[in-house]
Amino acid sequence: MSAIRWPGGAGCAASFSFDVDGESAVLAAAPSAAGSLSTMTHQAYGPLVGVRRLLEVLERTGTRSTFFVPGYTAELHPGTVRDIAAAGHEIAHHGYHHLKPAGLSTAEQIEQLDRGSDALERVSGIRPVGYRAPMWDLSWEMPGLLAARGFRYDSSLMDDDAPYLLAPDPASGAAIVEIPIQWALDDWEQYCYLPDVTELGPIQTPQHAVELWRSELDGIRRFGGCWVLTNHPFLSGRPGRATALEAFIAEVRAMPDVWVATLGEIAELTVAASPAPRPLPRIEP
Amino acid sequence: MSAIRWPGGAGCAASFSFDVDGESAVLAAAPSAAGSLSTMTHQAYGPLVGVRRLLEVLERTGTRSTFFVPGYTAELHPGTVRDIAAAGHEIAHHGYHHLKPAGLSTAEQIEQLDRGSDALERVSGIRPVGYRAPMWDLSWEMPGLLAARGFRYDSSLMDDDAPYLLAPDPASGAAIVEIPIQWALDDWEQYCYLPDVTELGPIQTPQHAVELWRSELDGIRRFGGCWVLTNHPFLSGRPGRATALEAFIAEVRAMPDVWVATLGEIAELTVAASPAPRPLPRIEP
Amino acid sequence: MSAIRWPGGAGCAASFSFDVDGESAVLAAAPSAAGSLSTMTHQAYGPLVGVRRLLEVLERTGTRSTFFVPGYTAELHPGTVRDIAAAGHEIAHHGYHHLKPAGLSTAEQIEQLDRGSDALERVSGIRPVGYRAPMWDLSWEMPGLLAARGFRYDSSLMDDDAPYLLAPDPASGAAIVEIPIQWALDDWEQYCYLPDVTELGPIQTPQHAVELWRSELDGIRRFGGCWVLTNHPFLSGRPGRATALEAFIAEVRAMPDVWVATLGEIAELTVAASPAPRPLPRIEP
Amino acid sequence: MSAIRWPGGAGCAASFSFDVDGESAVLAAAPSAAGSLSTMTHQAYGPLVGVRRLLEVLERTGTRSTFFVPGYTAELHPGTVRDIAAAGHEIAHHGYHHLKPAGLSTAEQIEQLDRGSDALERVSGIRPVGYRAPMWDLSWEMPGLLAARGFRYDSSLMDDDAPYLLAPDPASGAAIVEIPIQWALDDWEQYCYLPDVTELGPIQTPQHAVELWRSELDGIRRFGGCWVLTNHPFLSGRPGRATALEAFIAEVRAMPDVWVATLGEIAELTVAASPAPRPLPRIEP
Repeated sequence: MSAIRWPGGAGCAASFSFDVDGESAVLAAAPSAAGSLSTMTHQAYGPLVGVRRLLEVLERTGTRSTFFVPGYTAELHPGTVRDIAAAGHEIAHHGYHHLKPAGLSTAEQIEQLDRGSDALERVSGIRPVGYRAPMWDLSWEMPGLLAARGFRYDSSLMDDDAPYLLAPDPASGAAIVEIPIQWALDDWEQYCYLPDVTELGPIQTPQHAVELWRSELDGIRRFGGCWVLTNHPFLSGRPGRATALEAFIAEVRAMPDVWVATLGEIAELTVAASPAPRPLPRIEP
Repeated sequence: MSAIRWPGGAGCAASFSFDVDGESAVLAAAPSAAGSLSTMTHQAYGPLVGVRRLLEVLERTGTRSTFFVPGYTAELHPGTVRDIAAAGHEIAHHGYHHLKPAGLSTAEQIEQLDRGSDALERVSGIRPVGYRAPMWDLSWEMPGLLAARGFRYDSSLMDDDAPYLLAPDPASGAAIVEIPIQWALDDWEQYCYLPDVTELGPIQTPQHAVELWRSELDGIRRFGGCWVLTNHPFLSGRPGRATALEAFIAEVRAMPDVWVATLGEIAELTVAASPAPRPLPRIEP
Repeated sequence: MSAIRWPGGAGCAASFSFDVDGESAVLAAAPSAAGSLSTMTHQAYGPLVGVRRLLEVLERTGTRSTFFVPGYTAELHPGTVRDIAAAGHEIAHHGYHHLKPAGLSTAEQIEQLDRGSDALERVSGIRPVGYRAPMWDLSWEMPGLLAARGFRYDSSLMDDDAPYLLAPDPASGAAIVEIPIQWALDDWEQYCYLPDVTELGPIQTPQHAVELWRSELDGIRRFGGCWVLTNHPFLSGRPGRATALEAFIAEVRAMPDVWVATLGEIAELTVAASPAPRPLPRIEP
Repeated sequence: MSAIRWPGGAGCAASFSFDVDGESAVLAAAPSAAGSLSTMTHQAYGPLVGVRRLLEVLERTGTRSTFFVPGYTAELHPGTVRDIAAAGHEIAHHGYHHLKPAGLSTAEQIEQLDRGSDALERVSGIRPVGYRAPMWDLSWEMPGLLAARGFRYDSSLMDDDAPYLLAPDPASGAAIVEIPIQWALDDWEQYCYLPDVTELGPIQTPQHAVELWRSELDGIRRFGGCWVLTNHPFLSGRPGRATALEAFIAEVRAMPDVWVATLGEIAELTVAASPAPRPLPRIEP
């Protein structure tokens, strides 16, 4: 069990995070989609409409959250990013072009990482200290690159229920917090249909998505840990889904045993608990 | 928020639109399907049986609607198109061969556009003023082509909840209305299984589809906007689905805050509200 | 509306048909599957176990049915086919190697057709008069080939709710009955998961499948027509699915407005109603 | 019907088995996944976290079970395997590199088989007597290889509801028990989403999975046989799913007509019933 002490005697933590992918997520996955005005507007819905609605949802429920923003999206929609920051939420790093680190050379990863940090700082005034890999596909090199640049945490791995300290290079002593995620706590698999990009099957109802997310939260409440949900504003910013999400956030906030926080706040408590850092996992050929 | 005033003090608009794809949708996506009599009859069900049943559904619920018809379908099934028009519904443009504009040269787009308009005019006596891109895949060139030909509206983009004016070429001042759609408000993802063409996963029940569409309508009723549902007669003209759709239309028509209309009527109100036209969105390399 | 008069004043007909694909369906779709003992036994479950259980289900509910059997399956499992015939059900043609007619030359189609008829006659003693295309993929040539050989009906097309007469060659006057099917009335899309062959998505519950089939039956009861369900013994012969199917058959048999019959009986009534034969549909380039 | 007598007069048997695939399942299916730290941790969740939680679930419900472990996983996570054995569960063989036997030469199959047995024996102290093919894809050669090495049972085929004796080479007289499985009794199709490896469609709720598994168990209770469920700790070890599984195990254990056992115990009873051994099935070209 994790030794982290959550505030107010809560038995677990929960965070409603957002990946503001916008156009970049599709351009990285299927460059030819640039020729489709329909697809580009499907993605633009997130920064243009979805974020605004979700900021209102968070305000009405009194919730602070973390928004992962690709540098490209920040530059294309700077007002959106400034609105997020002005509302008191955390802006975190989500690559520059939304390219998977696991598919890039180290030099390319560095270029995307620093270019993304510069873009977010230029637009929002704040240099990000949290990172989530585009496509949730972290490379083996990235934890070391993050630690060397002073990032406080990553949120892209899947091997635990609770945050932990990760020491990419045990010799150096540098460590970052890892706040794990999982595919079931994502709106993408429930809602995303986009021809030539992803065709996951029948679009699910918001009721189905919330039932799935609630069942996992109830499990985390029982066993302890940290429940991290990810929504994409181009999907969950739609009126019906935002309404269902708002009702669910209100439900979670009324649970006395659940501490709702930003990922930055969760990272701080993890550091404060001073767990022994873990090395990178290993695999063998 | 949109400045459009819906009649009767309604808080939002709703339209039950139909894409009468028939054979052309499959021939464009998978030309080899022409050799399959089963697949061709699967598609022909729409113009032959589905449209007739759905016209009765619309009549029983006192609803006028918009039917997007490819030129090819109009020429193959002219009686079907004339029946639609005779029942008082709007006939709109859905390409000629149901080819995605985003995959064509400008010359090819023009050829498909004008050939489709000519076919619809020849068959129904009316030249269409509304357009929806085949496969919901509008190109960057098409808005300008539509404006230049006097079209009143397009309904293929996805970046807002409410209609707006779109000025493809700000210099010229010409503008069309854009009435946005979204993938969750389509019967294709819920019902379409067709080997070698699309295999989206388990065919859903009409109950599931209606639950999804209703949840989004309830969101639109809360936040305002325009809810546009699309059904394909070769799918939703089936007895069980048509029955579920009829019950749902009746339910929506009884909502005092929802104005049910054709897309042409919605376009007129949008123009009347005189919103500032938007330029085409931009992306950057 | 169809002019067919169903017995007892019933408003519609219903048939619980079975496609006994067994090993051949997979060998035709993915020949390399022959190397997988697991996959072969997955398919063999149908003739070995599923058919036996389903025959009991039909006996307990007092229902006669039509079983479409590939010639290859009949030769590999002759006892199964004889058991079906001995229980009073109709044996019908489902190709020889379960190859799609639409992908074969005319000579190959003839070879598969005659070889399948010979196999069924040799095994069961009866030469089949009903046909359903493997993979539900009928070619343009096959209706003429069936008519020339004295087949009474085909059940592979999808362009109507009720049976009709089809005249492949209007000059000759020969006609067969077409008893249409549709993808939603099939257990394949609900239950079939088989790596490297089909991965349609999450396997559905029997409750979901029955809800789907019932919703369409209720539609047919309302509008009239002929509801034809298809189950595959290697899928729906499993204990839980067979139990759900049995309960559903019992439910349907208790409906006073539904006439439950074999496809052969439905074909006879269609002929008796003497509808004007339809030509083959046409498409244009 | 099977002649096996289940203890206590039970009408059927049930086993909650686990495939501890971990990293190897993905490395075998998509070697490039080795470059993705996210994917590797997604898989490592099983041996690191999921197994521990599931061992507690089994302890709380007083249930003994069978864990199929690839040799590679055993060597990478030896403590996990020793914990399973120490808790009184059966350790069984699941290949070495989790490669499908059906895709390997006989020499390669032998190498994977013996290397896996050696690894399990070295780590757990016990040489396995049960086998399940990686990817549930048994080859035609493997039953003979297993019999020649003294394995008691295989659990990879799908052609019956109850265990039986299988004689790979009728001349030799050697036989193994086959304990059949089926795709609907697996958590993979319900829960597994992993980009570039498998994208089966919307992740299902634990409620849906349990409803599916229960409906089949109820069928087996009615008709007799042996219900074998398979869960993967990297999927079903998650808090919400483990909670649902625990409730379901408790429900099954309270059924007086169901005997819950390990596969090894089921194999012993099968041998004791002395059914006539079956030869390998046959297919024809």
